Amino acid sequence: MTHHITAMLNAHPGGIGSEDKQMLATCIAACLQCAQTCTACADSCLAENTVADLTRCIRTDLDCADICTVTGAVLTRQTGDSSAIARSMLEACRTACAVCAAECEKHAHMHEHCRLCAEACRRCEDACTELLESLS
Amino acid sequence: MTHHITAMLNAHPGGIGSEDKQMLATCIAACLQCAQTCTACADSCLAENTVADLTRCIRTDLDCADICTVTGAVLTRQTGDSSAIARSMLEACRTACAVCAAECEKHAHMHEHCRLCAEACRRCEDACTELLESLS
Amino acid sequence: MTHHITAMLNAHPGGIGSEDKQMLATCIAACLQCAQTCTACADSCLAENTVADLTRCIRTDLDCADICTVTGAVLTRQTGDSSAIARSMLEACRTACAVCAAECEKHAHMHEHCRLCAEACRRCEDACTELLESLS
Amino acid sequence: MTHHITAMLNAHPGGIGSEDKQMLATCIAACLQCAQTCTACADSCLAENTVADLTRCIRTDLDCADICTVTGAVLTRQTGDSSAIARSMLEACRTACAVCAAECEKHAHMHEHCRLCAEACRRCEDACTELLESLS
Repeated sequence: MTHHITAMLNAHPGGIGSEDKQMLATCIAACLQCAQTCTACADSCLAENTVADLTRCIRTDLDCADICTVTGAVLTRQTGDSSAIARSMLEACRTACAVCAAECEKHAHMHEHCRLCAEACRRCEDACTELLESLS
Repeated sequence: MTHHITAMLNAHPGGIGSEDKQMLATCIAACLQCAQTCTACADSCLAENTVADLTRCIRTDLDCADICTVTGAVLTRQTGDSSAIARSMLEACRTACAVCAAECEKHAHMHEHCRLCAEACRRCEDACTELLESLS
Repeated sequence: MTHHITAMLNAHPGGIGSEDKQMLATCIAACLQCAQTCTACADSCLAENTVADLTRCIRTDLDCADICTVTGAVLTRQTGDSSAIARSMLEACRTACAVCAAECEKHAHMHEHCRLCAEACRRCEDACTELLESLS
Repeated sequence: MTHHITAMLNAHPGGIGSEDKQMLATCIAACLQCAQTCTACADSCLAENTVADLTRCIRTDLDCADICTVTGAVLTRQTGDSSAIARSMLEACRTACAVCAAECEKHAHMHEHCRLCAEACRRCEDACTELLESLS
């Protein structure tokens, strides 16, 4: 995934610096992977016999999936200067990933999908934090 | 729209306070209307002969549409306590609306779609600000 | 909502026929309202004590919400001729609304949110059908 | 990406057949990669000096990105039986990818981002076709 994202950043007429490009591609890939994982985790939670104990997890998964998808799209757009928008979405995404990871970690010993989802959330949280620091 | 949103909030088993409900429904409606207006404005800009002068407007429209759609969904979800996520999305949405409104206002004297879009963005920015203040 | 959608269609430089415009605005509004209602119904189902009996309803709500949101966006875009895309999305949206309405109707006597959601799905299904017939 | 998607399908309590799983994971990955590529292509087109010649390409990119994102999410959800919804979204996605590929191919000799986007669309179109055939 990161390979394809980098190829598209390279093909962009706007000229993005090569150092930034690597970090940017990593963050976009982390967002899209986290979104897919959260969607899958919410659906797996729905299919568990213990779904009644997992409603908070499903809700944060749904929020996190939506927010990661949009963060990936906002970061993909390089035309025009909207660093204020990118920064505020990275902050929202970092928050959503942290909340969702903390929730999934509670169920990680019981459900492999929660364990994998917590990992994807932490990776995305880290990627957002790193990109945010490079922007400031 | 607000009427339908309120009816669904009333039907929610979670029990949302009635004062909050009005402000919440107003903000959800403002987000969804702003998202649709930004999608329409981006498409109208694309169809203008002067599209080359409107690329920054199209980009902010696309970001704002995505962010408003997701903010509307996050605010609609009341199960579980994720006020940190809601707050960070409201901040991102307020930022996106402010940036998009400022950009559309530059073209409002030339293009009715930009004038209407700037208005929708300002309404949504105000609704997010008001809801944020009530949450803190 | 329909009023704002129509105002944006009127402001589009592409020139959309006025009869089509009314039907188009109605369908876009029905899609966006159905999307919001399905998101709210999924979340209300999650908050019910009987959530284990509502997992199929939550799943169709989530699918239907996503599909209606995208159908509303595709229909809003008038630049370029992509009637094949619009037609296939209207068909997918009609299908999703019919499946979701049938599922929600099973729970409508128990849960007001399911009753309202079934109504929104049927309205959207009808609007998609009517628009599809006008396009062929 | 496909590796992570497969890991989540393996962790799903619903029990998906192992042959189907590989084809499903490939299709979900193709959808998400196509969505990201279309978002990047639309933004790259916006940044070209010749943007006025690329408005149809931008529009189909935007439609295709939205539709691929939602198809990826619908296919990820395995709880409940909504094969009618999955099938209709696969058909819409196949249509959108075919239309977008044909448009991008016109500009592929001029713009590397259009060449890469056409490739991603054709891969996704093929993956949807293959999955559709396995479902019928």
